[in-house]
Amino acid sequence: MTKLALLRHGQSEWNLANRFTGWVDVALTDEGVEQARKSGALMREANLEFAGAYTSVLTRAVKTLNLALEEMGRLWLPVEKSWRLNERHYGGLTGLNKQETAEKHGADQVKIWRRSYDTPPPAMDEGNPHDISADPRYAGLNATDVPRTESLKLTLDRVTPYWEETLAPRLLAGDGLIIAAHGNSLRALVKLLFRVPDEEIVNVEIPTGNPLIIELREGSLTPTSAMYLDDARATNLPKLPE
Amino acid sequence: MTKLALLRHGQSEWNLANRFTGWVDVALTDEGVEQARKSGALMREANLEFAGAYTSVLTRAVKTLNLALEEMGRLWLPVEKSWRLNERHYGGLTGLNKQETAEKHGADQVKIWRRSYDTPPPAMDEGNPHDISADPRYAGLNATDVPRTESLKLTLDRVTPYWEETLAPRLLAGDGLIIAAHGNSLRALVKLLFRVPDEEIVNVEIPTGNPLIIELREGSLTPTSAMYLDDARATNLPKLPE
Repeated sequence: MTKLALLRHGQSEWNLANRFTGWVDVALTDEGVEQARKSGALMREANLEFAGAYTSVLTRAVKTLNLALEEMGRLWLPVEKSWRLNERHYGGLTGLNKQETAEKHGADQVKIWRRSYDTPPPAMDEGNPHDISADPRYAGLNATDVPRTESLKLTLDRVTPYWEETLAPRLLAGDGLIIAAHGNSLRALVKLLFRVPDEEIVNVEIPTGNPLIIELREGSLTPTSAMYLDDARATNLPKLPE
Repeated sequence: MTKLALLRHGQSEWNLANRFTGWVDVALTDEGVEQARKSGALMREANLEFAGAYTSVLTRAVKTLNLALEEMGRLWLPVEKSWRLNERHYGGLTGLNKQETAEKHGADQVKIWRRSYDTPPPAMDEGNPHDISADPRYAGLNATDVPRTESLKLTLDRVTPYWEETLAPRLLAGDGLIIAAHGNSLRALVKLLFRVPDEEIVNVEIPTGNPLIIELREGSLTPTSAMYLDDARATNLPKLPE
């Protein structure tokens, strides 16, 4: 039985402020730090062992992983960081308050941007103060790899190569992995693993700082069980594929 | 000009208790945590940029690096962890108080174990409570790679392949690097870089939590300058090679 832990970063400052965050590198709140530590404590108490750890290049995910690994006494685990695990890029909505955006564009339009599978928000303008395309952490990427906006589908499209080339082969080889990432990049992984249909994936909501533990049939990528370690903060689990 | 930062972990619980630590995975003290944060703040204020970061697999070094990178806003940097950067293995002395050891074995004998270049302390016995050879972080190593005791020379012998195969090629290619490690593994790197004679290297004492910044002539491994960022806690610098 190979185990995979999906860990959404703890509460961030912009989760709290209800702003579209995407690729903006906001910090964890104190509560987010506590959620990360608690995640690690829960994984330690469950005697979970991993062979490797993965995270995005956004501070809130890296720090969540580091805090969890510290609680587990596993700071020595190899960690690989990839932009492909970043949050969905929210385009021109980045930085806007979700309530204000609904008042400006209408609740229906915002619902489409937030909840449709394949409709991206408007692209980010040149000169947008939240434009991070020149950040040194993306210096090694092709210019066309850095998004100006993304739907959930486009997020999945750039997560998929990392899944296929890096994560899936390790799981198939029996290595337990922990992946610290974001609401939408984790949705993408859940969609791939549980074969969730396009129209249902937006209803999968992974809570912050609550490890989702997935067991895979040995030598396969087929989930045989899924559970949250923090029962009190659990949401609906994805259905196991038949 | 390629820059290399050598960062000895902040004060640990056993630095404070004056015990031989070696490969035992002791925690940072609160002061050690502060030293690590301050190291990061000093590197940020000096506008230092690195292409990669390296650390041992001991918690006190990994955590020092993580805290420093966080202060620099550089948690996204790739980090590689290697047992080859671990502290010198103190063999049978591991866990003993340095003062008590001097009373038991005589100050002269302890001075030889601590200060000679190539005399290792007695090997660690089987069943020693500080024996870490079965720790899962060393599971991938050949049994003969896990030391039972080390002199500074033996430490250097296992640091050298990592220097030659991993660190030196990156520096030669112009990548700035930060290496968080330990008193003796950093001594080994200083000995290699500054070509310090065997009998002088034990006098090189790198303070905890004070980044040693070394500039290398471009495309070479020849240091052209060396400085500590925290002047108030600086020690003698290694002499530049002629």
